[in-house]
Amino acid sequence: MNHSLTEPAETIEPLRYLSKVETAAIETELLRDYRFGQQQLIEIWGHACAIAITKAFPLTSLAKKQPTVLVVCGPDQNGSIGLVCARHLRIFEYEPTIYYPKRTPNTIHQDFTVQCEKMDIPFLSYLPTEVQLINDAYNLVIDAILGPETDHTDVKEPYAGILVTLKQVKIPIASVDMPSGWDVDQVTSDGINPDVLISLTAPKKCATSFSGKHFLAGRFLPYDIQKKYDLNLPEYPGTDCLIEL
Amino acid sequence: MNHSLTEPAETIEPLRYLSKVETAAIETELLRDYRFGQQQLIEIWGHACAIAITKAFPLTSLAKKQPTVLVVCGPDQNGSIGLVCARHLRIFEYEPTIYYPKRTPNTIHQDFTVQCEKMDIPFLSYLPTEVQLINDAYNLVIDAILGPETDHTDVKEPYAGILVTLKQVKIPIASVDMPSGWDVDQVTSDGINPDVLISLTAPKKCATSFSGKHFLAGRFLPYDIQKKYDLNLPEYPGTDCLIEL
Repeated sequence: MNHSLTEPAETIEPLRYLSKVETAAIETELLRDYRFGQQQLIEIWGHACAIAITKAFPLTSLAKKQPTVLVVCGPDQNGSIGLVCARHLRIFEYEPTIYYPKRTPNTIHQDFTVQCEKMDIPFLSYLPTEVQLINDAYNLVIDAILGPETDHTDVKEPYAGILVTLKQVKIPIASVDMPSGWDVDQVTSDGINPDVLISLTAPKKCATSFSGKHFLAGRFLPYDIQKKYDLNLPEYPGTDCLIEL
Repeated sequence: MNHSLTEPAETIEPLRYLSKVETAAIETELLRDYRFGQQQLIEIWGHACAIAITKAFPLTSLAKKQPTVLVVCGPDQNGSIGLVCARHLRIFEYEPTIYYPKRTPNTIHQDFTVQCEKMDIPFLSYLPTEVQLINDAYNLVIDAILGPETDHTDVKEPYAGILVTLKQVKIPIASVDMPSGWDVDQVTSDGINPDVLISLTAPKKCATSFSGKHFLAGRFLPYDIQKKYDLNLPEYPGTDCLIEL
């Protein structure tokens, strides 16, 4: 081994990419031991996702006259993050439309839904299967459909059909936490192919060779959690809630 | 009246300063009709307060060697906002210490407390009455003691004593939402005299002639609420969560 004297004494460890099991373990610790609330985490993540969208797709860069964005929300936590993201995008003067085909009975998710409805954000009753309609109406799609907790080998309807449609759209897609339809634990070519990925907490193993614009959000993570899981998070600039990897 | 032709057709209405009654009414609407969660609002406000502190007192500007900050937390919502603010300041590499003499049994407040404890933020068991000790140990004090819901004519212990102490400190004070000890509805010379005020939602009537650095935070407010209460909020820059008035 050639240990040059000019090398820094402390080498910077590479960023960790989390497995499905580690992702679940960290979230359990945050909720149970650190007493973060689900509502609190979803608000933090959704806000950070909206900031990421403003960085990747600034209002002035949008191809269409209206700053339209389609936010597709799944049934679980990722869907709620999508709702919060849409609400903040509305505040940032985008025009989000939400497609949220299955509303969960969970009170927190319902509350986030009401917040969007009362902000006059329209909800689509169905997703056009004719992808040209989506390409024409929106500048981009936010994929807040399936998160790391979903079994990618058993994607149920209506989400399987939604993924088929989204694989064909020509406008850019930004995925929340991981691209829907991917296996959390390995690089796959299945599922949709986003231009932008907004990893939450830490990136997942499937994103190891992701070549699009990649943001990391989740600056609130306690140091002990970062250390315990060897996350080796990069230093966030200033007071920014996210960083581009 | 001299209506000059060069005047813009639409005049900009002045920012509204809220009364105690209006402040309570808006919060009730946010919680009941818009289904915002208390946890969610406290997280948003506490984060914005921490950002305001970084703007008013950047790390590089602090007089003392260590970036110490004393956060004094009251028993109600303002106290919880102080806890969240302290947690984010820790993430921004300040060294907050919390004085939180009466912990409420409310689960949400307890959760925010645990989050701070698990972030290794020290809690003071008592506030030194010798103010020189405070001046020497900290760069600034964050007053998250009493909010608009408190009756300023009947401030109970230990808060009355804390206010007496804080009135004498020489280091700068930043107040959350309103300076503790002030009457919400009118300009008073009682109570503490902060250098920085971080108004939440909209400034309160007591802040009409506040001459220090004044921030407004609460960018999430639904447009219908802004309109209903004629808030005439200024335009927030970029994706900032606050604005200096």
